[in-house]
Amino acid sequence: MSAPDFHPADARYAERVRASFARQTAMATIGASIVDVQPGQVAVELPYAAHLTQQHGFLHGGILGAALDSACGYAASTLMPAEAGVLSIEYKINFLAPAKGQRFRLVGTVVKQGRTISVVEGRAYAIDGDREKLVATMHTTLMTVTGRDDVKH
Amino acid sequence: MSAPDFHPADARYAERVRASFARQTAMATIGASIVDVQPGQVAVELPYAAHLTQQHGFLHGGILGAALDSACGYAASTLMPAEAGVLSIEYKINFLAPAKGQRFRLVGTVVKQGRTISVVEGRAYAIDGDREKLVATMHTTLMTVTGRDDVKH
Amino acid sequence: MSAPDFHPADARYAERVRASFARQTAMATIGASIVDVQPGQVAVELPYAAHLTQQHGFLHGGILGAALDSACGYAASTLMPAEAGVLSIEYKINFLAPAKGQRFRLVGTVVKQGRTISVVEGRAYAIDGDREKLVATMHTTLMTVTGRDDVKH
Amino acid sequence: MSAPDFHPADARYAERVRASFARQTAMATIGASIVDVQPGQVAVELPYAAHLTQQHGFLHGGILGAALDSACGYAASTLMPAEAGVLSIEYKINFLAPAKGQRFRLVGTVVKQGRTISVVEGRAYAIDGDREKLVATMHTTLMTVTGRDDVKH
Repeated sequence: MSAPDFHPADARYAERVRASFARQTAMATIGASIVDVQPGQVAVELPYAAHLTQQHGFLHGGILGAALDSACGYAASTLMPAEAGVLSIEYKINFLAPAKGQRFRLVGTVVKQGRTISVVEGRAYAIDGDREKLVATMHTTLMTVTGRDDVKH
Repeated sequence: MSAPDFHPADARYAERVRASFARQTAMATIGASIVDVQPGQVAVELPYAAHLTQQHGFLHGGILGAALDSACGYAASTLMPAEAGVLSIEYKINFLAPAKGQRFRLVGTVVKQGRTISVVEGRAYAIDGDREKLVATMHTTLMTVTGRDDVKH
Repeated sequence: MSAPDFHPADARYAERVRASFARQTAMATIGASIVDVQPGQVAVELPYAAHLTQQHGFLHGGILGAALDSACGYAASTLMPAEAGVLSIEYKINFLAPAKGQRFRLVGTVVKQGRTISVVEGRAYAIDGDREKLVATMHTTLMTVTGRDDVKH
Repeated sequence: MSAPDFHPADARYAERVRASFARQTAMATIGASIVDVQPGQVAVELPYAAHLTQQHGFLHGGILGAALDSACGYAASTLMPAEAGVLSIEYKINFLAPAKGQRFRLVGTVVKQGRTISVVEGRAYAIDGDREKLVATMHTTLMTVTGRDDVKH
């Protein structure tokens, strides 16, 4: 997926998104970092770690989902006004292949930006040497929230 | 939800499920433990931790999702033959309220046990003092896998 | 599922819901009728019809989904103010068994009623003689809309 | 979405898919026809009809979902062996905008073709004069079934 031609409402969207991501302690705990921020599209990277596996030694699908959820949420956030917050209403993740690899690239791309409701699609790629493989897809619905101090940025 | 009247194919299902959960290093990393194993139903507990938050200081929804995914997967696993493995095909999680609380209870309950495909519903409750609140629901599809050494238990 | 103890904001909710359902020409076309309206729960019935099948002669899953979507939407609608409208944001349907039967009972039950966002679960049962079998589950997110003339009731 | 470079296992896939679609009486009832069959991608068209609406006079979302489900299922079917059948395990549909238009184009595109499990994404476009607008997205999981006489083609 490439991002459609979106125009952010907030010129400093990238700075705002990176600062908010940095406040997600869960992302630091799992080792995820934000590697690209474009209007309507955010990429996150997550190295494989032996303390984040399921029972067969692969990356736990739910951990992959958490990182992909953040990529998708921030993709929506790039297009929102500076003062707005974003809430995940729901997401669905399909696992296409075992999450085998040295690291993972999680990309969220906005499909529809609405005033209240946005829809974002995510792709998770496992990177194994010089091969990149699609291992999961996500589809998520987010809500723009304004005027609530507890849900900002 | 209470679990329907399921009859496990493997008398030692609880022991097997607990041993497999113990091999999920991701669950230890986020502090999740398995607290109940019944035929068709598994409960996991997750204490709030400051290193697992999203940007507003609440538990990250994706981390909640990871723990709930494990509860649901093992709920399906209780009903499977001893030698079978279980793979998550997909899950959907709806966030109903912010994940505010001292700890979280994640319960997976089998809705349909099929030979190949099972469907499990999950509930996430936030426990705040003596109040328990439903904060997320999950619906997941799992596949029984046999004869693959890399997907066992 | 039994409906939680919901208190409708509109005393004439049942009348309003039945009148709105009657305006869904799609429901008449597929032969669906509303058979029960409670606070937070609506049941729809759909007889099997030879002109509504998939390629193997069973009821088309998408048609079942359409009727179940209506049951879920109106379940949310029972709890809304008289002047509000309801929009489906998304739904997910899991098919558990082939839709074999003389008729189908579709039940939507509200899980969470929010000011803006509601979450509803649906169950589809196939009725074959005196046996009733769960054949599909639905999970849907709906939005309460006020002040829009094109989305009312 | 454009379809990846898929290679059908059955040279006569298009003929087989069109013949199977023709047996879906539900599609004839709602007026849907198959307009394009490529390896891994199928397009269906559905004209607006006054007998297929929800309560505000727009096409019923569930009917749109039924036609899109067929497009997605047959997209998966193009890549399957001649003797295999395909079963929908689950689908999720997100409604992005009201389904306003003279007709609708429903496109299913395979994301992952597996031996047993395939994942397909769908797009629904409303065509209003010479404008085409994305109004819904679908994400669906399908299972390849062989050796069952009641699930063939």
